[in-house]
Amino acid sequence: MSQSTYTVTGMTCGHCVSSVTEEISELSGVSDVAVDLATGAVTVTSTEPLPENAVRGAVEEAGYQLVNA
Amino acid sequence: MSQSTYTVTGMTCGHCVSSVTEEISELSGVSDVAVDLATGAVTVTSTEPLPENAVRGAVEEAGYQLVNA
Repeated sequence: MSQSTYTVTGMTCGHCVSSVTEEISELSGVSDVAVDLATGAVTVTSTEPLPENAVRGAVEEAGYQLVNA
Repeated sequence: MSQSTYTVTGMTCGHCVSSVTEEISELSGVSDVAVDLATGAVTVTSTEPLPENAVRGAVEEAGYQLVNA
């Protein structure tokens, strides 16, 4: 099991949280996505470590930006 | 044809605009809903003047607030 926390900018409301959660959840091996709207922290739990590019792609697909670690 | 502009607070993004537009569009006689996210102005076009309570109910159903005129 792997867990990583990313920072996403641009989310302003619960709809934004839902969009990001939905896109990241579609990535292979993801079992949980937890978003803190106030801070932009997105914690992703997956069976194996995820390539950051995959997470970035999902976030951008939802219409938001992943901050470089 | 009747057109009225209301002010709605709490909308922060395009998803919020969509939710408000969708709920107000379901009111009987409404033919157009135009939302300005920056100002919260919502202009509703309808075949007959709408009771403000109907518009208020739709806005609240979407999860936002109508400012008293």
